[in-house]
Amino acid sequence: MTLTINGTEIARSIRSRVAQRVAETAATGKRPGLATILVGDDPASAVYVAAKRRAIRQAGMRDFHRHLPRHASRGEVAAVIDELAADPDVSGILLQLPLPAQLDAGPLIDRIPVTKDVDGLTTASVGRLARDEKGLRPCTPSGVIELLDAEGIELKGACAAVVGWGALVGRPLAQLLLRRGATVSIAHEFTADLASVTRTADIVVVATGVRGLIGSEHVKSGATVIDVGIHRTPDGLVGDVRAAELDGIAGRITPVPGGVGPMTIAMLLVNTLRAAEWDSARAALSV
Amino acid sequence: MTLTINGTEIARSIRSRVAQRVAETAATGKRPGLATILVGDDPASAVYVAAKRRAIRQAGMRDFHRHLPRHASRGEVAAVIDELAADPDVSGILLQLPLPAQLDAGPLIDRIPVTKDVDGLTTASVGRLARDEKGLRPCTPSGVIELLDAEGIELKGACAAVVGWGALVGRPLAQLLLRRGATVSIAHEFTADLASVTRTADIVVVATGVRGLIGSEHVKSGATVIDVGIHRTPDGLVGDVRAAELDGIAGRITPVPGGVGPMTIAMLLVNTLRAAEWDSARAALSV
Repeated sequence: MTLTINGTEIARSIRSRVAQRVAETAATGKRPGLATILVGDDPASAVYVAAKRRAIRQAGMRDFHRHLPRHASRGEVAAVIDELAADPDVSGILLQLPLPAQLDAGPLIDRIPVTKDVDGLTTASVGRLARDEKGLRPCTPSGVIELLDAEGIELKGACAAVVGWGALVGRPLAQLLLRRGATVSIAHEFTADLASVTRTADIVVVATGVRGLIGSEHVKSGATVIDVGIHRTPDGLVGDVRAAELDGIAGRITPVPGGVGPMTIAMLLVNTLRAAEWDSARAALSV
Repeated sequence: MTLTINGTEIARSIRSRVAQRVAETAATGKRPGLATILVGDDPASAVYVAAKRRAIRQAGMRDFHRHLPRHASRGEVAAVIDELAADPDVSGILLQLPLPAQLDAGPLIDRIPVTKDVDGLTTASVGRLARDEKGLRPCTPSGVIELLDAEGIELKGACAAVVGWGALVGRPLAQLLLRRGATVSIAHEFTADLASVTRTADIVVVATGVRGLIGSEHVKSGATVIDVGIHRTPDGLVGDVRAAELDGIAGRITPVPGGVGPMTIAMLLVNTLRAAEWDSARAALSV
């Protein structure tokens, strides 16, 4: 029998622990705050940002939000980031992607100080992850690790296949898995024989953006399958995995929706809390 | 028949091309220069630094060298790095590792500006590699890629196994191979069944520091085997691979010595040249 990994419930438990911690520290000191920056009016981005802000407020954190017009210049966005970077009440800064076409995301992201980089996407954070140093890790791959931990799946010595080598999920996830002692294989669009890579893995994580890419021919009996994909179809949301085919084959699988999705927001709250605590620790050290 | 990859010859050809380019640019402008910093009197480090300086001079570049005493403080080393960082004649800075025990390497390495980081080890360079952005890449893994290219081995779509997940070779090499379109599996000390990872690979790169770890049971017929290991024995230098066992099995193999070793210095020269050209490009842009 294939078990379903209940990401909604695991995320809820993490969010409740974050809220508790926020309540404790708010009594004695400062309340963590997240600043979200939305440029333009992309409907999907607006929905994501609204969900993040709601979660931040529900956790008892401060919600700072900046909405810039679609035609905002590089300088205007940079000025907002710099102002938030300098604001001691702002623990974390999130620049919602994608940006409108006239803006180059890389240099703007890199204006976010490493201690406030709750998305973990700045060059400095990426370098700290690769060098195994203290830093904030991207939310979705951290959420995948949390799911595996919550299910009690041993990572040390396990064989993991990461399908998809994107900057947001695949690359950081491969490093997080390696850091935990997993043997990791990374497959992508140029991989000649995908099944040969995934079929030997105890853990298969799929983050390709290709709907229904992974099916029964790709997964060995008893493997844990984590589906990061999300696609809107007339029949509802589906992932990169043909989940129905894996019933009775996979040991555990994340559903879409209700698997990885809720974890991303939960880890954003965790990162905002970590950023606030990191910042306090730095302030205390510099006294 | 197993072909031997002649790293000495490939490195010589690269060094000669670098020297030619240095001669060309020296006629019209500035001569690239490398600053090596040696702290203490470790005999092996002294030998390595001497070899690097000799190669730099042979390529027609300027050789800056600083030797600090074994008990040098963090502040003393930092001051030397800062001075070299500010010197426009210094294109690249190399802090020879390991440092004496009282010095924490990470923060000192991070004082090297990203444009002068010829070892590619600063957080900024590591982040740029992980984000696929312009930057200087670590010499040994770049040298491995150059060897594979020189032998005409197709990387796109190839299956590569990287054995060893160290910061100097395994981690950056995995990223360089992925960037070139290889499917990459990374094995390390916690890998339960090493042969199952390496036996399916078209390219096996071994950088573990474990003498003779890889033998005939680990390699499929026709595979290319790159041995980054180097160990001094009464019978001479040997690698992480039991090379004699692979004769007639591997398609191509690097010898030890004369395989990867010479490439590291060749790529240091390439990086010094790139650093000088990057610096000129920046200077030109800021005019």
